[in-house]
Amino acid sequence: MEAGFKATIKDCHVGVIGLGLMGGSLAMALRDAQACESICGYDADHSTLEQALRRGIIDRPIDLRGDHVDVLILAAPVNAILDWLIKIPAVFSGNFHVIDLGSTKNQIATAMQALPDWISPLGGHPMCGKETSGLGVATPDLYRKCLFVLTPLDRTHATSLAIAQQLIDVISARALILEPDRHDQLAATISHVPYLTSVALVEAALHAHDEVAWEMASSGFRDSTRLAASNPAMMLDILMSNQTGVLAALVRLQTSLETLTQLVQQGDRAALQGIVDAARSRRTTLFT
Amino acid sequence: MEAGFKATIKDCHVGVIGLGLMGGSLAMALRDAQACESICGYDADHSTLEQALRRGIIDRPIDLRGDHVDVLILAAPVNAILDWLIKIPAVFSGNFHVIDLGSTKNQIATAMQALPDWISPLGGHPMCGKETSGLGVATPDLYRKCLFVLTPLDRTHATSLAIAQQLIDVISARALILEPDRHDQLAATISHVPYLTSVALVEAALHAHDEVAWEMASSGFRDSTRLAASNPAMMLDILMSNQTGVLAALVRLQTSLETLTQLVQQGDRAALQGIVDAARSRRTTLFT
Repeated sequence: MEAGFKATIKDCHVGVIGLGLMGGSLAMALRDAQACESICGYDADHSTLEQALRRGIIDRPIDLRGDHVDVLILAAPVNAILDWLIKIPAVFSGNFHVIDLGSTKNQIATAMQALPDWISPLGGHPMCGKETSGLGVATPDLYRKCLFVLTPLDRTHATSLAIAQQLIDVISARALILEPDRHDQLAATISHVPYLTSVALVEAALHAHDEVAWEMASSGFRDSTRLAASNPAMMLDILMSNQTGVLAALVRLQTSLETLTQLVQQGDRAALQGIVDAARSRRTTLFT
Repeated sequence: MEAGFKATIKDCHVGVIGLGLMGGSLAMALRDAQACESICGYDADHSTLEQALRRGIIDRPIDLRGDHVDVLILAAPVNAILDWLIKIPAVFSGNFHVIDLGSTKNQIATAMQALPDWISPLGGHPMCGKETSGLGVATPDLYRKCLFVLTPLDRTHATSLAIAQQLIDVISARALILEPDRHDQLAATISHVPYLTSVALVEAALHAHDEVAWEMASSGFRDSTRLAASNPAMMLDILMSNQTGVLAALVRLQTSLETLTQLVQQGDRAALQGIVDAARSRRTTLFT
C-alpha cells in the first residue's frame, strides 16, 4: 500500500477540515502558490464553508458520505481533531497523509496510533496565530517565518514528512521536529501558562474591586493580558489535553513568583536585581 | 507667601530634573506648544544634558549652586526623586510648585510633607511610558491621551493643581485625582504585579532548562513578557517603594493562579470556562 502515498505536494488533492484562521490561511497560501492539484474543504459552520467556496479559497466541499484526498489537514481545536481522527477512516478511502494543526500533541498522537495502516498520520503545530479567530481574519501570509513543529510517530511514513516539508516551504514557515511529549512540555511553558497568567492578571484586577483600576490600565496591562482574549473553547481544549505539561510549568511559575514575593517582602533589592537582570537579558536577546 | 505661587503656566519658568523619556518628552511638548516662559533642565548624565541643550529641548541648564523656577518637575526614578526632595530647598529660592512624575506615590508624599512651606508639592504619575528609556526615545506626543494621576496633599496649594491641569491640557493627557495610597494599590494591580509576572514567566522558562523553548516562543510569549524588558533600576525603585501594595496584589494573583491550577488538575472544564470567560469579557471591553 505504501506506493499509494503521494510524495509530492504538487500532485496532491488536499483536503482541509476547519476553515477558520489556521485552515483558511493555509488553504489561501496553497491556492495562491498553486501548490497542489486541488483543495477541498469542510467547516462545521455552514456559512464559513459557503464563504470559502464563494471566495475561491477551496475548489469544492468535502463529501462526508465518502471522499478521496491525498493529504488531509485537520485545522480545528484539539477536541474536534480528536473527534475527526475517529471519523476519517469511514469518510476517506485510499492511502492518504493526515496532518493535524492542533496546539497539543500527546493526546492527538495517541489517537493517531489507532488509525488504520492505510492512513499515515503526522502531528503538526504551527506556532503562530492571533487572538482573533475565523475565516474573516485568515490571511495567506499567516505562516510566514513561523515555526512549524512536526511530531512524527514511529508509524509515520517518510513521505508524510516529505509532504509536510514541502507544505512548510510553500507557506514560508520553518520546520522543527520534536517528540509529542517534549512539544507539550515546552508549549505549556511558553504558551499555555502565559495564557493562564494573563487570565489570572485580569481576575486579580477584578478581585481588587476598584473600578479605577481599569481606568489606570495602560499599554503594560494591555500586552500582559492580550492572551486572555484568546478563544476560550480552543484554550480549554489545550489545557484539558495538556494537564501534565501545564501543571509542571505552573509549578515553575509559582516557584518563581514565590521567590519574587519573598524578596519584595524582605526588601532584598540586590537579590531581586539578579533575577530581573537575568530575565531582562534573556527576553531582550529573544525579541530584539 | 501664597501670592508668590504662579497660577498660569504661560507665566512660568519651568525646571525639569531628569531629561530621559518622561522629562525629555514633557520638555519637548512644552517647548513645541510655547506653553511657558522658559525651560531649564538638569540630568545626572552630562551627555544627556548637553544633548537637550543642543537640540533646544531646554533653554539653559539648572544652576545647582542656586537657581529660581516657578514650577519644578521631578522626572526621575522614585529613589532619585526622594533624593531631590531633600536637596531642592537648598538649590531653589522663592515660591515654586514641585510636581514629581514618580511611579509610586506613598513614599514621595511622605517626603513632600517635609518640604518648607514656601514650596508647594504635588504628586503626579502619568500612566504612559515605553520599555525603552532615555532622551533618545523621547517624543513630544508621549503623553497624548494618557491618564495623568495627581495625588495632592492637604498642604498642596490650589494653584499647584491649576498649574498641573494646564500642563496636562498642553500635553493632551487627562487628569485623575487619587489618594497616594489608593494610587499605589491600583498601580500594583495593573502595573507592578504584571511586571513581576512577566519576569516570572521568563524565569520559569529559564528553569525549564530546554533551549528549544526559546525557539518556540512566539507573539504570545513576546507580549506576555514585554514588561520584563523594563528598566531594572526604575522597576526596583518601584517595588521597594510600594512593598505593601505589591504584596497585597501578589496575594490576589497567587490566589487566582492557585484556583486555576486546581481546576486544571481536577479537569474541571466548566469551572475554568467561567473564569476565562469573565476575564476575556473584561479584557475585551477594556481594550477594543
